Amino acid sequence: MIEALVKALPEGRVLTDPDVVDSYARDRTFLEPGKALGVVLATTRDEVVTTLRWATEHRVPVVPRGAGTGLAGAATASEGSIVLSLAKMTAIRELNPADEFAVVEPGVITADLDRAAREHGLMYAPDPSSYEISTIGGNLATNAGGLRCVKYGVTRDSALGLEVVLADGRILNTGRRTVKGVTGYDLTGLFVGSEGTLGVITSATVRLRRAPLAPPATIAAEFGSLRDAAAAVSAIIAAGCQPSLMELLDRATLKAIDDWRNIGLEESTQAMLIGQSDASDGQAMAAMMQELCEANGASFVALSSTPEETEDLIGIRRMAYQAKERLGACLVEDVCVPRSALPDMISAIEAAAARHDVMICTVAHAGDGNLHPVFIFDHGTVEPPANVWAAADEVFKAALEMGGTLTGEHGVGLLKRRWLALESGPVATEVQQGIKRVFDPLGILNPGKAI
Amino acid sequence: MIEALVKALPEGRVLTDPDVVDSYARDRTFLEPGKALGVVLATTRDEVVTTLRWATEHRVPVVPRGAGTGLAGAATASEGSIVLSLAKMTAIRELNPADEFAVVEPGVITADLDRAAREHGLMYAPDPSSYEISTIGGNLATNAGGLRCVKYGVTRDSALGLEVVLADGRILNTGRRTVKGVTGYDLTGLFVGSEGTLGVITSATVRLRRAPLAPPATIAAEFGSLRDAAAAVSAIIAAGCQPSLMELLDRATLKAIDDWRNIGLEESTQAMLIGQSDASDGQAMAAMMQELCEANGASFVALSSTPEETEDLIGIRRMAYQAKERLGACLVEDVCVPRSALPDMISAIEAAAARHDVMICTVAHAGDGNLHPVFIFDHGTVEPPANVWAAADEVFKAALEMGGTLTGEHGVGLLKRRWLALESGPVATEVQQGIKRVFDPLGILNPGKAI
Repeated sequence: MIEALVKALPEGRVLTDPDVVDSYARDRTFLEPGKALGVVLATTRDEVVTTLRWATEHRVPVVPRGAGTGLAGAATASEGSIVLSLAKMTAIRELNPADEFAVVEPGVITADLDRAAREHGLMYAPDPSSYEISTIGGNLATNAGGLRCVKYGVTRDSALGLEVVLADGRILNTGRRTVKGVTGYDLTGLFVGSEGTLGVITSATVRLRRAPLAPPATIAAEFGSLRDAAAAVSAIIAAGCQPSLMELLDRATLKAIDDWRNIGLEESTQAMLIGQSDASDGQAMAAMMQELCEANGASFVALSSTPEETEDLIGIRRMAYQAKERLGACLVEDVCVPRSALPDMISAIEAAAARHDVMICTVAHAGDGNLHPVFIFDHGTVEPPANVWAAADEVFKAALEMGGTLTGEHGVGLLKRRWLALESGPVATEVQQGIKRVFDPLGILNPGKAI
Repeated sequence: MIEALVKALPEGRVLTDPDVVDSYARDRTFLEPGKALGVVLATTRDEVVTTLRWATEHRVPVVPRGAGTGLAGAATASEGSIVLSLAKMTAIRELNPADEFAVVEPGVITADLDRAAREHGLMYAPDPSSYEISTIGGNLATNAGGLRCVKYGVTRDSALGLEVVLADGRILNTGRRTVKGVTGYDLTGLFVGSEGTLGVITSATVRLRRAPLAPPATIAAEFGSLRDAAAAVSAIIAAGCQPSLMELLDRATLKAIDDWRNIGLEESTQAMLIGQSDASDGQAMAAMMQELCEANGASFVALSSTPEETEDLIGIRRMAYQAKERLGACLVEDVCVPRSALPDMISAIEAAAARHDVMICTVAHAGDGNLHPVFIFDHGTVEPPANVWAAADEVFKAALEMGGTLTGEHGVGLLKRRWLALESGPVATEVQQGIKRVFDPLGILNPGKAI
């Protein structure tokens, strides 16, 4: 069957060596993939069309992927599927400084686009923690967030238009090159976050924004209580400081970082809040954040006055995930609650950790109410043990009870499907399956993911 | 047939007096409605459910409407339809200052929500020119823009979640109460801008934002050439001034205003640019805008230093539409182009006006590249005459050729359907019709509109 595909594509596009296929079958989760038939390394839109036509003809499931940095399993290969990698489509086709947009292929590394934009005084705002290794295509597929989205919004807010190859090989163009536009239904927004289940994005027109005029001003505040830190977040938002970054680290996370890199963690510090302003009056805004942290019980607040100091402060946040990976295998979660529920959500996480004897380290995009509790378990274990799932189950249900959502920015993938019905309800589920059938009547696009 | 509906609803909900029905059958366009069976003035979600179940049973087309301020004909009643008015559902059910959202019924007047938010130091950002008379429901249905959207985005950017009654009376809840969330497909975004063709919105969770800390600073600059004014717009955006409003008025518009209210228009003035900054350093930003206008050839720039002066400057823009209505009947258009194409688009409008001997007055949300050419024709005429349509046809085609769109913020409605295929193409058209069938398999929801 796959011979027909090998023949239809230029030489070298289809990989079938089992070890190589296996390396393309996984993302950053612990999930064991099914055995895929092969991997297509597409370099052009027409090769994507050829692959999807072949898949339609032979009813072969297609698992699209970018760099495989996903944290929910959406790019995990399913049994008997073909993996379609877009990682080789890396051209920035157009970068238009006057109209502040770029047209990019899906394999462009997110930070590369940002750097290309900076040469023109612009930036590409969405910056998931993986942005040095993840691709725009993957970011679009999962509607990735990031640190800056507290001010600039998530990936969907930067997507203007898409070129998509549908399951049967037809080409769909959505959206526009303009800032605004309301012609027809919002197909662009529908594809963003659809985790490869509706079509394969082969090009995207994305919005660029003016890069800040001044270097950002940054604070890092230490608190003896998580509730005080959360109160400081609310006060900063309520004061109109408009932070461009507002990250909260709990003691377990700080301890993991301190054990690894010695950041001089005080015994009494239970939480650290890192805030940044990239506004033209950023120093004044950072000073206001500093005051508000102090007024809400911070024991110490560092205020950066140079780019190097800023890098040091942000560097603490950047070390968080690696520091946790040293401790064990990680189940990274992604609940999001209304911001005022942040302290209650943190308490719920701590209670779940204690009840089920699980180590949970939490960082939060605090300005967005988006928490990443990371459940640590033995490196040697393939699947998280039962107590980890039990604790995760409690955390998800607590988030939903607080008016929150299962996933703020990572997506549903495979990992969160078992909780999905709790959030979506039967009518939304039925409607989403109906939409899926419009685009992919044979159900060959990333089956079993997202919805 | 309608007797069953009258019986199923509380007394007084169904109006059938022909004159009253006719008054609910129109929007702000010149379009002649078909003869509707009656009007339902719904006051609760359950009354909407009852109406849609009845409509499904009897296969009666339903035309939802808010205040009827639409400019594209989406709320024009079709023959044999029932008009479903949401204007009586006016409750602000929840206003949550800590988490910066509100839950509102669709009949809430947009400016009323904004005022309610301001009492808590917040604002509801989308501000279509009609915001003192239009409803949130109508704004959502058309994905309305406004003056502030150059900084704060359009209505879709403020919509977090919806409660929708589907054609068969089922209730669908979309979205969330959190800032971020990626569970399932973006149904909220799909409904926003769908012009009542997918379901009837009975409640919306909308994002509020911090109101600016300082009163806004405003400039008004006069130019001897439209190209100079457009160059100033580009320079202001490129300098990172982040205007919260950036409006361009052409000479025909200024002349109409001057004839009505005498604003002391100079013979040499061909265009006026009104810019505003609501940033905490807004005065400095406005001063920068002033300099950039002067550097780009402005003959005179007024810089407001008090709220009263600001109101005077913005007032000129607010008079634009009424000033034009004095001149004749108006076909209001809404093309949007990449910002750098603004001067070319203005030239194309002027050429079309000259070629077809039509008076066209243009205002533009210049920061967004969104132009409203208003085609003036005889008050006595019901339909625009052939030369107006010929000029409009040229304007639309020119916008599409420049990489633009037919409608930046008014919607497609009935008015723009004949040009729709030029922008959407056959695959997108087919996909949109497929989505429509998922939600409304009998095709009773606002048939013939939007797609």
